Amino acid sequence: MNENILESPAGGATYNYRVEPRDVDATHRARIVAMADYILDTAGEDADRRGFGVRTLFPQGCTWVLSRFAMELQRQPQQYESFDVRTWVSSFDRLLTTRNFELTDAGGNILGAAVSNWVMLDLNTRRPMDLRGRQEYERAIVHEPSPVEAPRRLPATEGMLQSRHLVAYSDIDFNCHMNSMRYLSLMLDLLPAEQLTERTFSRFDMNFLHESHLGEELTIHCCPDAAASLFEIRKADGTAACRAEVKWR
Amino acid sequence: MNENILESPAGGATYNYRVEPRDVDATHRARIVAMADYILDTAGEDADRRGFGVRTLFPQGCTWVLSRFAMELQRQPQQYESFDVRTWVSSFDRLLTTRNFELTDAGGNILGAAVSNWVMLDLNTRRPMDLRGRQEYERAIVHEPSPVEAPRRLPATEGMLQSRHLVAYSDIDFNCHMNSMRYLSLMLDLLPAEQLTERTFSRFDMNFLHESHLGEELTIHCCPDAAASLFEIRKADGTAACRAEVKWR
Repeated sequence: MNENILESPAGGATYNYRVEPRDVDATHRARIVAMADYILDTAGEDADRRGFGVRTLFPQGCTWVLSRFAMELQRQPQQYESFDVRTWVSSFDRLLTTRNFELTDAGGNILGAAVSNWVMLDLNTRRPMDLRGRQEYERAIVHEPSPVEAPRRLPATEGMLQSRHLVAYSDIDFNCHMNSMRYLSLMLDLLPAEQLTERTFSRFDMNFLHESHLGEELTIHCCPDAAASLFEIRKADGTAACRAEVKWR
Repeated sequence: MNENILESPAGGATYNYRVEPRDVDATHRARIVAMADYILDTAGEDADRRGFGVRTLFPQGCTWVLSRFAMELQRQPQQYESFDVRTWVSSFDRLLTTRNFELTDAGGNILGAAVSNWVMLDLNTRRPMDLRGRQEYERAIVHEPSPVEAPRRLPATEGMLQSRHLVAYSDIDFNCHMNSMRYLSLMLDLLPAEQLTERTFSRFDMNFLHESHLGEELTIHCCPDAAASLFEIRKADGTAACRAEVKWR
């Protein structure tokens, strides 16, 4: 449980975390997926605290699902490093809400930033809901622009590297579908590991297009390049479940 | 970061956690692996606080690795439930140290218990070190027996269910080998998912026999049974990396 929460004078709220041993790779730096997980935890916790989180929505028959996500890091922090995540919601449209994040290290230096777009899903129909006219959401808006470019819409990718994955029990989350960060983990696992420990991560953009469920066979496609790796995870019928572009410095 | 630590009047120390959304499955109960992860986090944190954790050992060229592990649960707690893990070290032998755990829910009811055996590994030779005659370890001993039966030595298993896994970047932890809980996750993913959500978990025993490294191909074998599932994960040369027995009520 995170007790280290501060309403931020800059708007939004700030949550403090520490890079735990389970978060790091063999180089003892936080994995990209672990940093993204902390950001998504912050989103869930902050929404819950403001009364429009999954804790409130589930009994009403709806939930939040991630639609697009972008994250930039100046560096991957070291094991046991403490860092802050400040988060604020900057808009609610008919279909999407935009939540922003700014990461700072213990010395107050910018560590990274992220922008996320969320859709509210009806749990019965699994269709998006209309977000307009909800006063509790309007009240949460902080009129501060996103700290980095919004998540981009990504094109289809054929890919040279390929692998298969059968969606398993451990992939499924509280929303009864494959967890969004499991897609990213499968994508990065396709790259030569030295690329992940020797290259410097700069930014990812992710598009979540269709849900995947238990027992489905997915194929992971990657078009690797020196500056950017393009990924697509496809369902058995060829539909794209998730696309991502990962940029390296 | 866990700030909710209490030196326990009963001996050892008590750490407080909350079942987070990322810990649960589609039934909104904590996954078995998530509960085991909290227990192992507690072990790491408590050893660090007492000056003989990985944080101290790594600069000295050594680390702790899990040798055997057993966990029992009365029930899998619900999302957002708070629980305590009390931990104490009951012995140091030449090769093994025994660390115990008792889990209680917010109402003070016993939620479960665990016993772990650890080996100290020389990071250069990857051979076990002699644990005798270290005063800081002797001082940490609490003369209270393990709360449940010690982890059992498990026999080889042929298995009817089988799958393959290529050890990937996301499997490798700070000890530069496949993380112990990833073995358990691969094993449980081999079972029909309804077994994991409809059956009631009772206890697992795990033996960690040989390390697995990046790029190795592993085969997962399972002999499923109504009362107990026996697992073995084998390396390409047939050596057992890990064995487990999972009992259901």
